[in-house]
Amino acid sequence: MTPDVLISEVGPRDGLQSVKGVMPTAGKFQWIAALHASGLREIEIASFVPARLLPQMADAAEVARFALTLPGLTVMALVPNLRGAQAALAAGVHKLTIPVSASAAHSMANVRKTREEMIAEVRNIVALRDETAPQAQVEVGMSTAFGCTIQGEVKEDEVVWLATLLVEAGAGEVGLSDTTGMANPAQVRRLFNKVRAAIGGKTGAAHMHNTRGLGLANCLAAYDVGVRTFDASLGGLGGCPYAPGASGNVVTEDLVFMFEAMGVRTGVNIEKLIAAREPLKAGLPGEPVYGMTPEAGLPKGFRPMTNDFAARAAQ
Amino acid sequence: MTPDVLISEVGPRDGLQSVKGVMPTAGKFQWIAALHASGLREIEIASFVPARLLPQMADAAEVARFALTLPGLTVMALVPNLRGAQAALAAGVHKLTIPVSASAAHSMANVRKTREEMIAEVRNIVALRDETAPQAQVEVGMSTAFGCTIQGEVKEDEVVWLATLLVEAGAGEVGLSDTTGMANPAQVRRLFNKVRAAIGGKTGAAHMHNTRGLGLANCLAAYDVGVRTFDASLGGLGGCPYAPGASGNVVTEDLVFMFEAMGVRTGVNIEKLIAAREPLKAGLPGEPVYGMTPEAGLPKGFRPMTNDFAARAAQ
Repeated sequence: MTPDVLISEVGPRDGLQSVKGVMPTAGKFQWIAALHASGLREIEIASFVPARLLPQMADAAEVARFALTLPGLTVMALVPNLRGAQAALAAGVHKLTIPVSASAAHSMANVRKTREEMIAEVRNIVALRDETAPQAQVEVGMSTAFGCTIQGEVKEDEVVWLATLLVEAGAGEVGLSDTTGMANPAQVRRLFNKVRAAIGGKTGAAHMHNTRGLGLANCLAAYDVGVRTFDASLGGLGGCPYAPGASGNVVTEDLVFMFEAMGVRTGVNIEKLIAAREPLKAGLPGEPVYGMTPEAGLPKGFRPMTNDFAARAAQ
Repeated sequence: MTPDVLISEVGPRDGLQSVKGVMPTAGKFQWIAALHASGLREIEIASFVPARLLPQMADAAEVARFALTLPGLTVMALVPNLRGAQAALAAGVHKLTIPVSASAAHSMANVRKTREEMIAEVRNIVALRDETAPQAQVEVGMSTAFGCTIQGEVKEDEVVWLATLLVEAGAGEVGLSDTTGMANPAQVRRLFNKVRAAIGGKTGAAHMHNTRGLGLANCLAAYDVGVRTFDASLGGLGGCPYAPGASGNVVTEDLVFMFEAMGVRTGVNIEKLIAAREPLKAGLPGEPVYGMTPEAGLPKGFRPMTNDFAARAAQ
């Protein structure tokens, strides 16, 4: 049974990036293996950045090599620049994701480059990919697409302009990220529609944060206008250290529950997904782990689509 | 400027009903006055039940008389039976809301009556209203409409059947309540559409809980299919003591933020609404008060529709 949506788990990258404690490499292996065992088929496993900037990610190559042993898994890594892309491609990852800020102010704060410089960086990364690892995919996650804690509003026309240039630079997909938790459902529908009108099938994932409680409503809004890839983080771990107050990725458990309850197949076994919280907690003792569905438990009589499709179809 | 949606605040009834501490009567006055000052135009101020069953509500008549002094406010009270309706109408409330369970099992657990007995009770309450207070409105909040923690699934046909009979019994409106936090957006759209097909404009409020994190997504889904009245509780206070684990009304602050950000006028000033948390906290020391938007703060550059409509229109 093919899933209807792709849940792209970003916890091992976006989540770990924002916590104080460093998860041991062996702990990352256990956590990623548990995520994979739940049925997740795309995991952003690390960020390829200098270890002095982000000690949490010093073992990125080792984690990538482990993840590559898991059958059927698309191993994705974040790379902020050409040097990161070189390291990630050398480690053999299947997919690179490059953060490009829609907000000019956030771009300087996050990667110390203008948006135009980041477009050039994407072009260079695509050229490197073509030369050294032509099978690898390159996607862009457009951060602050729905607003910026530094500059406030981000013009929708600039998002569309940037998406178009990024595709011209060779990005296979451009997703929209609500890095700062400022998106609302009407804006999500409008902006995804505008971006799709500009770049068509290269419109990528919805990456929503739950900063103001609207994470799932925004995912629903994106689903309504045809988005089929959703980033989420187990236990809601994550945020952006350069966008103050903007913590809180959408909780994978709650997102999977919402879709499965709606009759949308995620391919993820929600009980195994909830079980994957244990290696997360073991690897990061004391770190808060969120999620309403795990706390409340599954509803009485709940029949997820994944695992139980035949039973439903027979009703 | 007429609001596009009606936010019906249920905290003083649904919220207080589920907490251990008893808020002093003077504290209720302050809290309800602050809610009214934020622009809320409908407040469920109490439940008219025997004080021995719910000591929190012993001052219901006194609270009603205070609320009736607030200009432009629709004063609503929950009444589980004819005796409660007599007391509430004697106190002068504008609107009665009667809980009728869609789930046969929950009906017995919650009010110790069958659904058919509750339909008869509604008929008696409507007759009493016609005789003693013809200007008062009678609505039904159909609890467990989306699932039940006791019996599990609730058949959609039974919800439609019950809604039809309740309108025949004289209910002016029938709303649908996700008492148990089991609803999903696809079900919300489907069920409100079915109920509207049966009872038309007498379809009432969406009363959603955030038990599994889907509260706002479910409100969005209801809005999408034409629902324009939404129950919510300041600070997310509330739940049903007879539906174990089913705590967590939708947070009014987050709901108002979502709508105002979407460009949907609520008529509520969100800053004053957030300020109304202070009398709630003062009246219930130590009680947890939830809300993502109050914790994160309003986004930089946020322009709500209410208060700032002219500025937006001039853009």
